[in-house]
Order: sequence, then structure tokens, then C-alpha cells
Amino acid sequence: MAPLADLYQVSMAYGHWRAGRHRAPAAAELFFRRPPFRGSFALGAGLAEGLRGLRAFRFSAADVAYLRSVLPSTTDDAFFDYLATLDASEVTVTAIPEGSVVFPRVPFLQVKGPLLVVQLLETTLLCLVNYASLVATNAARFRLLAGPDVKLMEMGLRRAQGPDGALSASKYSYIGGFDCTSNILAGKLYGIPDLPPRAGGDPVDLAGLAVSWLQRVCDLLQTPPSKANQGELAAFVSYAVTFPCDFQGLLDTYCVRRLDIPSSPSLAPEQRGSSSWSISMASSGPVPAAPHPPDVGPQGWSSSAGASVGSWPILCPPEAPSSPQAGGGRMPNFGAVLGFFNCLFSADLHQWPPQRGHRFPSLLPQLVEVNGSPCLKLTEDEEKMTIPGMKAIYRLYDAAGHPFMDLMALEEEPSPSAGQELGIHVLGQLGETTTVIPSMVEPLHRTYFRDGQVCEPLPSLPEVRTHAQVSLNLLSPAHRRLHEPQPYPVAVTERLHRLFLELRQGS
Amino acid sequence: MAPLADLYQVSMAYGHWRAGRHRAPAAAELFFRRPPFRGSFALGAGLAEGLRGLRAFRFSAADVAYLRSVLPSTTDDAFFDYLATLDASEVTVTAIPEGSVVFPRVPFLQVKGPLLVVQLLETTLLCLVNYASLVATNAARFRLLAGPDVKLMEMGLRRAQGPDGALSASKYSYIGGFDCTSNILAGKLYGIPDLPPRAGGDPVDLAGLAVSWLQRVCDLLQTPPSKANQGELAAFVSYAVTFPCDFQGLLDTYCVRRLDIPSSPSLAPEQRGSSSWSISMASSGPVPAAPHPPDVGPQGWSSSAGASVGSWPILCPPEAPSSPQAGGGRMPNFGAVLGFFNCLFSADLHQWPPQRGHRFPSLLPQLVEVNGSPCLKLTEDEEKMTIPGMKAIYRLYDAAGHPFMDLMALEEEPSPSAGQELGIHVLGQLGETTTVIPSMVEPLHRTYFRDGQVCEPLPSLPEVRTHAQVSLNLLSPAHRRLHEPQPYPVAVTERLHRLFLELRQGS
Repeated sequence: MAPLADLYQVSMAYGHWRAGRHRAPAAAELFFRRPPFRGSFALGAGLAEGLRGLRAFRFSAADVAYLRSVLPSTTDDAFFDYLATLDASEVTVTAIPEGSVVFPRVPFLQVKGPLLVVQLLETTLLCLVNYASLVATNAARFRLLAGPDVKLMEMGLRRAQGPDGALSASKYSYIGGFDCTSNILAGKLYGIPDLPPRAGGDPVDLAGLAVSWLQRVCDLLQTPPSKANQGELAAFVSYAVTFPCDFQGLLDTYCVRRLDIPSSPSLAPEQRGSSSWSISMASSGPVPAAPHPPDVGPQGWSSSAGASVGSWPILCPPEAPSSPQAGGGRMPNFGAVLGFFNCLFSADLHQWPPQRGHRFPSLLPQLVEVNGSPCLKLTEDEEKMTIPGMKAIYRLYDAAGHPFMDLMALEEEPSPSAGQELGIHVLGQLGETTTVIPSMVEPLHRTYFRDGQVCEPLPSLPEVRTHAQVSLNLLSPAHRRLHEPQPYPVAVTERLHRLFLELRQGS
Repeated sequence: MAPLADLYQVSMAYGHWRAGRHRAPAAAELFFRRPPFRGSFALGAGLAEGLRGLRAFRFSAADVAYLRSVLPSTTDDAFFDYLATLDASEVTVTAIPEGSVVFPRVPFLQVKGPLLVVQLLETTLLCLVNYASLVATNAARFRLLAGPDVKLMEMGLRRAQGPDGALSASKYSYIGGFDCTSNILAGKLYGIPDLPPRAGGDPVDLAGLAVSWLQRVCDLLQTPPSKANQGELAAFVSYAVTFPCDFQGLLDTYCVRRLDIPSSPSLAPEQRGSSSWSISMASSGPVPAAPHPPDVGPQGWSSSAGASVGSWPILCPPEAPSSPQAGGGRMPNFGAVLGFFNCLFSADLHQWPPQRGHRFPSLLPQLVEVNGSPCLKLTEDEEKMTIPGMKAIYRLYDAAGHPFMDLMALEEEPSPSAGQELGIHVLGQLGETTTVIPSMVEPLHRTYFRDGQVCEPLPSLPEVRTHAQVSLNLLSPAHRRLHEPQPYPVAVTERLHRLFLELRQGS
């Protein structure tokens, strides 16, 4: 299989080769410029796959022959011979452990090696890390919204970018905090567990109970029971009987007043011990506010179905703004709530549609050093300026154990220590010097790849998932919250700041 | 590899099996309820892959063992034995040829077979056909906007749902009308051609010319030339020299006033004969209106970068509304314009962000017949009602050769003929009978799959691409236009209409 590379990257590589700078030592990094989904954080994911992509990186004879056929005929033949010799054996990768919370501007991953290879690897790494990080981040937001007890199942197979896109979604939503997936292949391949079986209760007369609950639900909906679809109700009962101890219902919103909602909760209250209900918000129409299992109280269910792309988890804890169509309140009796990634980029829990001009950010690649000289890319927009040079990254913790700042330093600077006063410049306020005294300092980057090999043991999928939850739980509530979180400060050391100023003046 | 199936589908299959209706003859269809991207049409794509998925559909011993481990322990053992015997050998698929224009409510694909298998195949087919059709449709809209001569390259690899999601995007944007892809693997796997080489002109003093053009471009931008980044300009010149006859530039919008735009068009005018320029609208900021190659005229370039997610093609023919930041007008001198699917679902050319409540539709699966009885799913919303039964589909053409209506009939009805007056009911106006006289009648569905095998020769990728352009070109301008197109009418025959009414009354 050809490496995951873009043709225009190969053209640029040819430019480097022609200019004789293809073997210049270079460093690049991947980072988010802004946090996705209007949060304060992202989860870094896809590292293990990115490293596998690196290890496999080479152009076969057939790949080179293909490139020869598509590059201009004026391309020097020796360049193709050179391409055939390339691999990642001279590349070093450091990264923040997979599943960690990462913040804007802080590199999730740094790559060092010969310029030509570093630049070709840009697409390989982005392709394997970008989507993974966005799905994991989004899943983590669903998890935060749902709380620790509600079960979340990923069901995106049929809407994904083909089979492999679906596998990525299943895997990285598991890492972000989902419990299981409806995708059989993903479950089997990655060992994603199924929901644990629930204990059954005493036998009940399900059909009789369903009919009696139907009356009460229809009262709440202000719909006459005669208008509810009896065939659908019978089908629900029959289906529930098929799974006497471990029933999982999926409630579609095809016809909310007459069909789906009156029929399904009519079963739910009596099945509480052994069932779980899920609501697929596939409908584009507004969902009536009323229907709810009677013991949840009058606030009922809530959804943002009217504004959703595809299905939507029917969760609305108090902190989340509810949609105009429905009230707030959550559903403690409904164990499995399905988050359906019809379109990952749309699944911003709080803002759909996004405001004009708003983008869901993706990871950006940036060359930060060539031939030992740090690179600075200037622009009118300070937010878009890059931070030059190979960096060491530290997470600073306060006395309560919450991280309060990420600090970027030059690689050769001594590490900061706990209890030490540090002079720093917060990004976005580069003019001012501030001092901070961290209670704990954690170096974030580890070396994962060296001499063509993965050189650090990689955790299992469940270990990465656990690490993600630990990393999220350490965040202070102000940074963790989904709606209008406090921006997390990222700073540079005085030395890195001086380097930045020198480069800016020099350019 | 396990089939592309959802766990909840297997649970439903168990319900059918327990109730003894698993072998009931059934029919289902896939259709769009509304056309995507606010157009009037979709392109049907993914058929060949869907058929391959069907042929391979079976649960291996390992798959069955996995399912046994995740389904409730009360599940009857014999059900798993039954699963192991399943394949698509009793399934028949009819479909509209891949690459055809398809309209809302008209099934792109119909599946007949035993109920349990038909229902399990729902996810398999959706996963392979839905995204494919959306990408192809979107690509077709870019092609319509660009006109037939501008070259379009797909560059979505680094933002896709992993490697395979990217391959799908490359393949189906090619089918929709793109010319090439930056994804080396996709180009090699699918034989997607590269841009044809351009003829070189006479040798020129590129560096000298670039400097003289820089002055003129900076005048237009009202930026002093001293503020333009000289290093970037030198890099552009050096890169252009590397590709003396076949230069393709990619213009990023990282720093539009000082860096990207002043430097690049400074080269372009003299390179016209042998170069092509592409503009990546990666920036979220507004793009200044002025810069343009001087012979394009004062209207300049146009983009909707300010509202874009990711990169955007820099095209704005007169019919498309231009963004507030920029004037209208296209760029005849810029051969390759890159459409970058950062997020397929966002790439609505005219509406970003989508209005509240607007969704990008996806294909819907629907059971239309079980045990010889047509199924009708009732809802309050007439638009969401399904059309019952296995259907024959005809496209009716007017005297000018444009399709003016798709007509759904019961399978057993005689085909309508050209010149014959037909009594029909247009969907959305089901109360009224209308008559139409088509000048030509085209039966749309062909049988592609029978007895477990593909039974109709499948066209090559370039053939499907050509068919798509032919199908699009047949559309009348009112239906083809991107902005506020005239909705294309879809109708049912009087017999199908009567069946619909009888079922609705009976329910």
C-alpha cells in the first residue's frame, strides 16, 4: 500500500531535493489552533495508528512507478530513485500520551528528521491523528454531558465515510468515553465490550401494563390513545418479550405523537430493572416537550432534534441550554442513551448551526525548525503566529491538583520545578510578563518513535480510555464545562518569548 | 471480515426469527427524502461497492462466536446456527445505474429477499452507498459551478475519516466530476488520471517578471511592496523554476495581504501558458476583494472563505451569490481550482452555515413489502410517508429531451409509453390528478444482483463519471441550477395512488 501522502507534498519534496536541502534536519509539530466544539480542550488521539503509519512509511517500486507516471516529464529521474530509498528510520517523534487532554497551540506531536521526510509525513500523520482526535474529543463531551453512569453507544456505521471511517469513529468514541458500539466489526476487532447484562426482575404482564401506561402517556401528550398506533405498540411488546432480561429499545422519532413516543415509554416504567431505552433523534421536526416516564417529573425529555443533523442523544443535564422546543431535565431511568455521529463535525452539543464564520478546527501541521534555525511564520493575526523551535512542554498544576497552565519552553532549557517561581508570557497577552508558582510540574512529551521503531510501550485501548477519563477529571470545573468554558492559558518561557521577538524583528 | 452490520439489527433479526417470520419474502428500498445541499437532485453512487458488500455478506464462525458473546445469554442457541447459514444468495437488487441523477422519494436501490436478510443488509448498503452518493453529489455541484473547463482536484486526505474515508472521497468526487486527486494511493488504486501536461511557452526571466508584477499586485491590494514577504516570493519563484513546464501552485490564505496573495499572482500572469494556480481557502478570515490577474478585470476573485469550513474553491460564476467580502467573477487563467472536502456535509456551496433546522439529508432505508403485502408507514408529516410496495420507476422526458418527472408505478403495471397520456399524482399534491404526455419514457431500474451474483456488467469508474455528466447535462437548467432550483416533480400512477389511499384508510 502506498504511504498516505499527497501528490503536492511530493512536488514540494522535489523542490527541496532540487535545491539540495532534502536532508536538512527539520522539526515540525501538530497542534490545534483553537479547541474544537467551542470547548476549552481537545483529546489527543490516533497516536498509535500514526506511529504504525510511520513505521510502514515507504514508497514501493510500484508506488514510485506510479509517481513517475503522474509527475511532470521534466522531473529528474534520480529523484525517483531517491524516493525509493526513503523511510522513517531517521525520524524521531515525541508526543503527549494518547487520550490526554490537549490545549490549543500546544503541540500534540513533534516530528524531527530530514526535511523531505518530515514534510512528506505531514499528511500521513494528519490523516491518522486529526479525525481520531476530533471524534475522541466529541465523545468526551458527550460523556461529560451524560455523567459517569449513563451508558453511551456509538451507532454511526451507516452514516460514516465508508467502512473504515466507521471503524475509526467506533474506536475513538470508545477512547473518548463511550461504552460500546453497534458496529459488529469494530466490536470484534477492537474488543470493545458490550453493555453489561442487567438483572431481570419478577415476571410481569407486559402487554397489560403497556396498555395501562399508554393511557397515562397519551394524557401527557394530549393525544387520544385511540390515535396511537396499536400495531407499533404490539411490535414493541413482542420485541420486549424476545429479550426478557436484557432489553434495549431504540426509539426513533419518525412520528412522535402517534407512534414512537406513546408506544415506547408505555413499556419502560415496568421494565426499569432490566431494560434500557435509547432515543434516536432522526427526525428534523420539533419534538413535543411533554412525554416522559412519570417519575422523572414534569420537565420531561429534552432534545435538540429540531436542529440536529442525524440522531442526537436525548440528554440534557441542567448546565446544558435546552432547545426552544423542549424543557430541560435528564432521564435517569433510561440506561443506554445513544450518541449517533451522523456527522462528527456537526455534533457540537451546544451550537448548531455554528455561528457564521465559526469553524470546527482541525489539527495543523507546522514546520518549526530547519537546519537548527527556528522558523517563524508571520501573519497579521497574532493567533495564527507559530511558536518557533523544538519545544519541551510542561503542564503546571495548582495546589488543588488541577492543571492551570501549559508551558512551552525551549528544548535546551532546564525543566521548571514545583514550588519555583516562573516568569512566563501567556499566549494572547505576549506583551506582559507574569509569574506563576506551580505546585506540581508534569513534562508532557515522551519519545515514542526513534530509529524507525516505536520505542515506548503503547497502552491498550481500554488503558487509553481510562487515561482519557483521568485526564478529563483532573481539569478544573471551569475548564471542563461544555458551555462557555474558561479558556485554558498556554504560556511560553521568557527565553522562548525572547526568541519569538528576535525572529519577528529579524523578518 | 465481519459483514457491515449493526448489533441492533441482529437483535431485531432475532425478534423476526423468534416470531417465525425470518423467511417471509420482503422488499426494501433506499431513497433520499429530500435532495442534499439544497439542490434539486442527488447523484446515486456506491452501487458497485454495495453489490460487492452483498456478495461477501456472511457471518464467519468467528463472527458468530463474537455475536454469541455479546447478545443476551437468553438468546436461543439455534439462532446462532441459523446466522451462520446466511448469505445474500436469495437476494435480488434492482437499482438506477451508478452515477445517475436521482430525485427525492425515488428509490435509488430496491432489495428483495427473506425479511431477516433484507433487514440485516440495511446497514451494509447504507454504509457503502450513502456517503458515496453525498460526495458524488457535492462534487457534481462543484463541477456545475466551475463549468466544464476548469480543472478540479480533490485534496481531502488529511481531513478525512482516516485512510479509507479519504479513498471514498477521492473515488466519488471523481465520479461526480472532479478531474484528479492529490491522494497518491487513491490515484494509483483507482487509476484516477493526473492533470494533463500543459505546453511550455518561451523562456522568461521569471524572477525579474515576478518583481515587476509584485508592484502592480501590491497597488491593487493597497499594500506597500516592502511589506510583502520577500522570502515567500523567492520561494515561489524557486518552486516555479523547479517545474518549468507544468507548474501547479497552491495558494494558502495564511496571511493574505503580505504573504500569499501578493507573492503568487506576481508569478501567474507570465506563466499562463504552462501553469495553474489553486487557492486553498484555509483561512477563516475575510479575503480582500482586490487581488486578481490584471486581465480578468476589476471584479477580481471571489470566495466565501469567511464562511467556510476548511478550504474552498475560489470560483464564483455570475449565478452564484457572492460573499459579502468579495466581488463576483471567475478566473479564466487559473486552470486548477481545488475543491477541498474538509467536511463534506458542510460544503454546501450556497448556504453556510445552514439555516436552523436545515439538515443535510442522507439516504433512508424503508421496508416497502412483507409477505406480498405492501407496507405503509404513517406519520403526521406527509413528506415523510413512504410509498408502499415494490415499484417500477420511469423517467419521463419532454420534447426538448429534458427529464421533467419521475414516475413510480406498481411493479405489475404495464410500462407507460411515449406519446401516451398518463393520469398521475404528483407527490406533495396527492389530492389532485394530473395528466402528462411524455415524449420519451426511460425505465430507470435494472436488476444488478440475483442468486448471490452480480448479474449485470458494471461500468468502469471513468464510464460512471461520464454517465454522471451526461445525466446532469440532460437536466433542464431550472432543475440543474445550484441556487434555488425548481423542485423536480416525482409522481405515482393512479393505481399506486389508490393503493396508498387504501392502506392509509385501513390503518
